[in-house]
Amino acid sequence: MSRERQHKHGAPVTMRDIAKEAAVSVATVSHVVNNKEGARIGEETRQRVHEAIDHLGYRTNALAKTLSVGSSRFIGLVADAIATTPFAGQIIHGAQDEAWKHGYVLLVANTEGNQAAENDAIAMMLEHQVKGILYSTWYHREIDVPESLHQTDTVLVDCFSTGSGLPAVVPNEQQGGKTATEELITAGHQRIAFINTTTPSPALTGRLAGYRSALEAAEIDFDESLVIPAVPEQEGGYEATAAIIASGATAVFCHNDRVAMGLYDGLREQGLDVPKDMAVVGFDNQEVIAAHLRPPLSTVALPHYELGAAGIRVLLGLEPEQDDEMYLIECPAIRRQSV
Amino acid sequence: MSRERQHKHGAPVTMRDIAKEAAVSVATVSHVVNNKEGARIGEETRQRVHEAIDHLGYRTNALAKTLSVGSSRFIGLVADAIATTPFAGQIIHGAQDEAWKHGYVLLVANTEGNQAAENDAIAMMLEHQVKGILYSTWYHREIDVPESLHQTDTVLVDCFSTGSGLPAVVPNEQQGGKTATEELITAGHQRIAFINTTTPSPALTGRLAGYRSALEAAEIDFDESLVIPAVPEQEGGYEATAAIIASGATAVFCHNDRVAMGLYDGLREQGLDVPKDMAVVGFDNQEVIAAHLRPPLSTVALPHYELGAAGIRVLLGLEPEQDDEMYLIECPAIRRQSV
Repeated sequence: MSRERQHKHGAPVTMRDIAKEAAVSVATVSHVVNNKEGARIGEETRQRVHEAIDHLGYRTNALAKTLSVGSSRFIGLVADAIATTPFAGQIIHGAQDEAWKHGYVLLVANTEGNQAAENDAIAMMLEHQVKGILYSTWYHREIDVPESLHQTDTVLVDCFSTGSGLPAVVPNEQQGGKTATEELITAGHQRIAFINTTTPSPALTGRLAGYRSALEAAEIDFDESLVIPAVPEQEGGYEATAAIIASGATAVFCHNDRVAMGLYDGLREQGLDVPKDMAVVGFDNQEVIAAHLRPPLSTVALPHYELGAAGIRVLLGLEPEQDDEMYLIECPAIRRQSV
Repeated sequence: MSRERQHKHGAPVTMRDIAKEAAVSVATVSHVVNNKEGARIGEETRQRVHEAIDHLGYRTNALAKTLSVGSSRFIGLVADAIATTPFAGQIIHGAQDEAWKHGYVLLVANTEGNQAAENDAIAMMLEHQVKGILYSTWYHREIDVPESLHQTDTVLVDCFSTGSGLPAVVPNEQQGGKTATEELITAGHQRIAFINTTTPSPALTGRLAGYRSALEAAEIDFDESLVIPAVPEQEGGYEATAAIIASGATAVFCHNDRVAMGLYDGLREQGLDVPKDMAVVGFDNQEVIAAHLRPPLSTVALPHYELGAAGIRVLLGLEPEQDDEMYLIECPAIRRQSV
């Protein structure tokens, strides 16, 4: 029943085309295609519809299919600001590629954090009988799960909700922090500062834990004075410059690439060269910045594409199940020229 | 028939709920709701379904509705890389807000420029009987229109196709270039350089025409030696620094914010201060860069949100028709501290 033929001009053959060819109504075609019970259609008419289908080629209409089997080939993605946030859009890209691979179409709703828009989006998706919903945030955090998400299969992406029972696919912040720090240790540094964010978040605690575990594995004592809090933007990195220089560090792990960009400016003003006078590693791999700083920034990638793709796989039951329903995605090192 | 009541727990009432309440099959509910011809359903059963609908409240299922009226409440958005490109994602945001406002849901397909994915996406949308399709690119350019787009109403967004007869919604590059140059003229500058892109595009020609028309309006002679071509990235701006200084210009209009970011680095290395020694204006308003340079960059915004929103309005016939089917969207000045 799932023929893939198309009109010569490339457009798919629709029920309307079949109806026209067979000189019957679209409803009749629908009844024949879906073997609707209760529909009284003469054998001759049924025959004519089947001949038209054979003649034109016909791909089972997704909507008709949905009505007859009760669930659709849609997967919903409800996002707070992903599509409109630099680089987190890769979550959509990954989810979409993976959904298509398994024959699903991604319905995307961007809610900009608006509660009413979110409720509308979820209701719309439930009404379209989606296979399930990915609920996603543009940065990693704990959330309260909207009640209506429990009406369908839901996977949280780049967020989690303790005690909700919902599976969550999140970046492995701790491994990422460890990887960043190891890049500097491997290059020979012992006195390594960490400009951490001031925003309470899994990134704050996870990356710090990773930094500490890398030091510990290398038998370098943890020195609390080397952890410098800063607003996680360019301005924060710039303002941390004096403290970094005063700390006697020869290398800095920055909470994100934007902080590293501000620190670059501050170091340059003090006549210090990256990486000769100070090695720098970022986090995020926000390409438009990291790849184009002078020198290009070595960093650790937030795996947005993989988060989206893994979210789909978890929803479809294609990932090995985790006991705690937390799926940690690796944050890989991206080496450029700042170490 | 379009009641909006919901279950107490917030999820919409589905045909399955009605079927359970009325103790009939989902197919029977579907037939009753849509008044299917040919369906033989007893008066008593029909009555029971209606009572269940009254009791639970029921919002006409969008899919069922689509099948019976032959077109859906979907609008398609086929994009080459918008969802995954920093800041162009605002096209999706604008299109979605505007679509919702008029009761439509946006189906987004991101094709990453892959022809097969694009054909699949368009076929899927046609199969779902979309109201129409927005076909969009992540930067403004001329395109070849895929044949299948002529099977439905199509609006081009951030791209155009001469002779295709399809309406196109694009940024007004010329007005944007004029606005950027005027910002510098108004601040008292007469010798204004323009770092233009080397990539042939409507942005190259349009912004140059705008630059020239602003000079002309201010009775400043056009000096070809002040137009300096550069790769439209940070590296291009950095490498143009020497030529800018040699030109004797006191102000620079940069083709985009990334070029301005590179120029900032170059000027800083030469000990020159922005804006005291050199005023700088960018283009794009790529927030993550422009708002966070030192000093924050005055620029002209590419109106991505408005492009998406206007695309929907053109599709729905809500914009005054243009003779040449070109809808030009204004690029507004964003003033910060670099002029």
